[in-house]
Amino acid sequence: METLEKTNNLGHIPAYGELDDPVTLSAEKKFREIFGSNTKVFFVYNGTAANVLGVQHLIRPYEAIVSAHTSHMNEDECGAPEKISGSKILTIETADGKITPNDIKPFLRSIGFQHHSQPKVISVSQVTEMGTVYTPGEIAALTTFAHKNNMYLHVDGARIANAAVALDISFKEMITDTGVDVLSFGGTKNGLMFGEVVVFLKSGLAKDFEYSRKQSMQLHSKMRFIAAQFNRYLSDDLWKKNATQANNMAALLASELKQIPQVKLTQKVFANGVFVVLPQQIIQPLQQQYYFHVWNYTTNEVRLMCSWDTTEKDVNGFIDALKKELNKI
Amino acid sequence: METLEKTNNLGHIPAYGELDDPVTLSAEKKFREIFGSNTKVFFVYNGTAANVLGVQHLIRPYEAIVSAHTSHMNEDECGAPEKISGSKILTIETADGKITPNDIKPFLRSIGFQHHSQPKVISVSQVTEMGTVYTPGEIAALTTFAHKNNMYLHVDGARIANAAVALDISFKEMITDTGVDVLSFGGTKNGLMFGEVVVFLKSGLAKDFEYSRKQSMQLHSKMRFIAAQFNRYLSDDLWKKNATQANNMAALLASELKQIPQVKLTQKVFANGVFVVLPQQIIQPLQQQYYFHVWNYTTNEVRLMCSWDTTEKDVNGFIDALKKELNKI
Amino acid sequence: METLEKTNNLGHIPAYGELDDPVTLSAEKKFREIFGSNTKVFFVYNGTAANVLGVQHLIRPYEAIVSAHTSHMNEDECGAPEKISGSKILTIETADGKITPNDIKPFLRSIGFQHHSQPKVISVSQVTEMGTVYTPGEIAALTTFAHKNNMYLHVDGARIANAAVALDISFKEMITDTGVDVLSFGGTKNGLMFGEVVVFLKSGLAKDFEYSRKQSMQLHSKMRFIAAQFNRYLSDDLWKKNATQANNMAALLASELKQIPQVKLTQKVFANGVFVVLPQQIIQPLQQQYYFHVWNYTTNEVRLMCSWDTTEKDVNGFIDALKKELNKI
Amino acid sequence: METLEKTNNLGHIPAYGELDDPVTLSAEKKFREIFGSNTKVFFVYNGTAANVLGVQHLIRPYEAIVSAHTSHMNEDECGAPEKISGSKILTIETADGKITPNDIKPFLRSIGFQHHSQPKVISVSQVTEMGTVYTPGEIAALTTFAHKNNMYLHVDGARIANAAVALDISFKEMITDTGVDVLSFGGTKNGLMFGEVVVFLKSGLAKDFEYSRKQSMQLHSKMRFIAAQFNRYLSDDLWKKNATQANNMAALLASELKQIPQVKLTQKVFANGVFVVLPQQIIQPLQQQYYFHVWNYTTNEVRLMCSWDTTEKDVNGFIDALKKELNKI
Repeated sequence: METLEKTNNLGHIPAYGELDDPVTLSAEKKFREIFGSNTKVFFVYNGTAANVLGVQHLIRPYEAIVSAHTSHMNEDECGAPEKISGSKILTIETADGKITPNDIKPFLRSIGFQHHSQPKVISVSQVTEMGTVYTPGEIAALTTFAHKNNMYLHVDGARIANAAVALDISFKEMITDTGVDVLSFGGTKNGLMFGEVVVFLKSGLAKDFEYSRKQSMQLHSKMRFIAAQFNRYLSDDLWKKNATQANNMAALLASELKQIPQVKLTQKVFANGVFVVLPQQIIQPLQQQYYFHVWNYTTNEVRLMCSWDTTEKDVNGFIDALKKELNKI
Repeated sequence: METLEKTNNLGHIPAYGELDDPVTLSAEKKFREIFGSNTKVFFVYNGTAANVLGVQHLIRPYEAIVSAHTSHMNEDECGAPEKISGSKILTIETADGKITPNDIKPFLRSIGFQHHSQPKVISVSQVTEMGTVYTPGEIAALTTFAHKNNMYLHVDGARIANAAVALDISFKEMITDTGVDVLSFGGTKNGLMFGEVVVFLKSGLAKDFEYSRKQSMQLHSKMRFIAAQFNRYLSDDLWKKNATQANNMAALLASELKQIPQVKLTQKVFANGVFVVLPQQIIQPLQQQYYFHVWNYTTNEVRLMCSWDTTEKDVNGFIDALKKELNKI
Repeated sequence: METLEKTNNLGHIPAYGELDDPVTLSAEKKFREIFGSNTKVFFVYNGTAANVLGVQHLIRPYEAIVSAHTSHMNEDECGAPEKISGSKILTIETADGKITPNDIKPFLRSIGFQHHSQPKVISVSQVTEMGTVYTPGEIAALTTFAHKNNMYLHVDGARIANAAVALDISFKEMITDTGVDVLSFGGTKNGLMFGEVVVFLKSGLAKDFEYSRKQSMQLHSKMRFIAAQFNRYLSDDLWKKNATQANNMAALLASELKQIPQVKLTQKVFANGVFVVLPQQIIQPLQQQYYFHVWNYTTNEVRLMCSWDTTEKDVNGFIDALKKELNKI
Repeated sequence: METLEKTNNLGHIPAYGELDDPVTLSAEKKFREIFGSNTKVFFVYNGTAANVLGVQHLIRPYEAIVSAHTSHMNEDECGAPEKISGSKILTIETADGKITPNDIKPFLRSIGFQHHSQPKVISVSQVTEMGTVYTPGEIAALTTFAHKNNMYLHVDGARIANAAVALDISFKEMITDTGVDVLSFGGTKNGLMFGEVVVFLKSGLAKDFEYSRKQSMQLHSKMRFIAAQFNRYLSDDLWKKNATQANNMAALLASELKQIPQVKLTQKVFANGVFVVLPQQIIQPLQQQYYFHVWNYTTNEVRLMCSWDTTEKDVNGFIDALKKELNKI
């Protein structure tokens, strides 16, 4: 907030991040420092756009996106990838939200068969929607597989800061060094007001992306207000501080939940999400006090997300409320 | 073929089926006689178009199509529904290619949740891609469910003649009387040269469809050449004669296969398709002699389709070739 | 900026403007007070989206948008309307950026002709891209014509505040009372940081718009940050203060330009835009000092825009620079 | 018709023109003989599809098509190019339906400007919609201009046979030797039952087109029925015979019309179309006897098309009817 105040609205800075808006240039430079000099960076408004446009730019409508069935792209974008790119999403059932080259192999049979969408981009989420995390080795295995089969690897990094903290590695080690082609770099879930980033790790892939962005209604005239937030976010390890807090709170929450015999954790906790099965009767009463989603209505599994501003008090408050509801049963 | 010769290219008949092209009018009349007076009929070029346009006309891009995972729409149109309609397909795993209201219920949770595509059209295939057939009661249960939930029922009738023969009922009993909203009525797989039909069973649903058809590149200037084929196809029970032959040959094929211990039928045979697991080694040698698809590369299940021009000799020839290959193992 | 600081990022307010985010509810209420109780309001990120989505929601792809050739929708969105809606734009040549029912009449011939896109939405800009303004009577004539022909009227109000100040009337008199169907209500060009508004004046037209918005990647998770800006903008006549300043500076600029014999105003100045033909040699040198667009490369007409933060000093500085360049010729 | 009878429906020929359907292979060979060995040929159902898919395959949605305003693509496809490709059409006003490099130059300013669609394909019709014809030199000038500016040239050849006859040159001289990139090769307007051809003159441009065709619902399962027609059409100069008849009849019609003082030819007659201004009162009475379109309702210009089966008797009959109506005034 303080940052935006300094990037205030009063100067006569060129619109659309064009020419030499110094704030946008500075943020772009920061991304190149982090991800490598071959990086091309485009600011968009939200995570839906970062995912859809980053992927769309690499494919034609008859080419398909391969992802976990649980991916945000597939499940929670109201069909945005299909509408905007015209492409099909080929999905994979997983236990933990993560996919491997072996999962993708069956789709290779479609290559060259004109009746089938041609698989072209593999999309993974880091952190996944199940709260799990890909190791750099797992990502590298996917990029190797992708490139060998003339495909690309996209990473949905809406929660990438939480993954970097969980793995204790740099963004470059996780993304650039593993051969990723395009990354959606998120900030909104980790404290920013608005704006996400499409990061092409190989500059050639970014050709003409500015037209994709404009035509898909994602060019911000006052781009400096997005850029300024990332300038600040990427300075003084602010991103890391926020993500560490969220991850720590999730770890705390998980350890508290493990003490309660009536509930059952369903995924190992790596980052800021905790998946747990609750007795059905207490879900609605708890939702009236705390905001969370039911993940699976059949099994009564719910997803609890911690964020950069979750406090120990919040966690303890939730655990207390949970225990209170359990006592009522 | 004789029919088309009579509908020859030499007269000065109005283009695009407009005004009073008598051949097109006559075919439309025939469809109304068969399906009921409230029927609206539109000729298009192929089955892909009949399916995609019939469904697309009933939905907006944020509304979803629900179908079996194995549906032709989902698996074999190279992403045409996604590109042309902009909509997502929500799929259901099935054992036999058939879906029920219970299978669809979980998708109802998405209604009103802005992050999810809104389920709006249920699409079933009759005959299904697994060779199975919906009874009229099963179709009626689906339309009742659909209408109760503000949805539509679409039937992909690429092989509808085979289903009518299998069930020994009229098209009207199968489609109109069960409350179906829109039908793709196929003929190409049952002997026609080109052309399929979008049949709206409720005339109000057809409003403006002519523009959908033209914009989607499916308006034939010399429409009488499609209409004439259907005129003939629907006369003197030609459709029934062709489909009966195909179904009979499939029954013969199935009964022969049952005698062979090394192979195993996987679906009950209702119409013109036979699903059977073969020893892996003989699949390719057989494919060099007969044209068929491997349905499942993991289980070595193949799909054998009989058509209106399959003969007993063809069936016996295949069985002989199969036995010969089995002997080589 | 102060406003956003108060709407800070720290509270646990529901995401996506859902449920009872009080900031969003309050902004919606303010719009209903201004435009009438039947108004439905949706926040999006930018003007491109407000225009494209507001119009798209009222049409099918085979229906066309009618606008001035010079409209922003037609000329400056990199084809966003065509891609997002799939529709054609039918354009009208104008002298001053304004269209009338008579201009639209020839397109009525296409109605019912299946080879032509069906005209369905008339889109006008208020202020127009030529700096001119529609009177309420002119808007009412367009809506009457539109409704009589089963069409809608959309107003691109990226500069609507400047028009309201120019006409000295309320938004309600200009928009609701004239029968407009949907309005893009802009704020970014009049001082806001980001966010624009799709305003449906008849609530029935807004049905399901939340899915259109989400699928088109325009749903902001932290919607309160857009809503808060409009809350402030619509309070204490801030919008009017800003627009008045811009309009006054344009009037000042025009009156100064009229004194200079070597330049020629081409449009009457109503709001905040000034169109003037300059000697070709001085255009580039001036552009190095001030940011403006060449409107017509053949005639050397340029467009000078004043904004809410343009000062008398800015205007005088420009006039001085212009005179200096003229002296060099 | 005789041809199709021989290509009858009874053999077990592979579907979709795949593998080694000999009829399709033979037609493809014929096209390579005519247009050169680097040619790639794809059969589709109609002219709309040939135009839209041929062009779409060369562009991304943010790239634009440049054509005469009167082009069939722009005026008579119900918005198919916009819906299927997502691209904008940039149009040029012409006196005779023909465009030149000079007409296109102003659009070059948009290149590199992210707010504008990027001009990428120039599309011309040969014969044009105004009945005029490009000389090979004019086509070559357009391809040179296109390639110099990183663009492509597409030719809508719905009436290409009539142009070849009018110019008395081969298809190769007109298309391949002038550097054209992609051609829609029509036959339906010159006697065929259905089917048109997308001809890529440079094989690299055709890459992956089979998926575009399938996804856009234009893959015919019994492709041999299209191919067979072209086999016949391109043999024994059948195309030339038909087109010559049409052109001759148009010349006859024009020479007769010139004798009638109350009517006025508006375009020089090159091929099979005649444009003439008629007295308004006689247009409708004549249309009740002969099928033709009013081209311009303001000027009462009508378009008279002669086809391969127009006879001298037809022409004389029309002239007589015309004179009779003139006498009634």
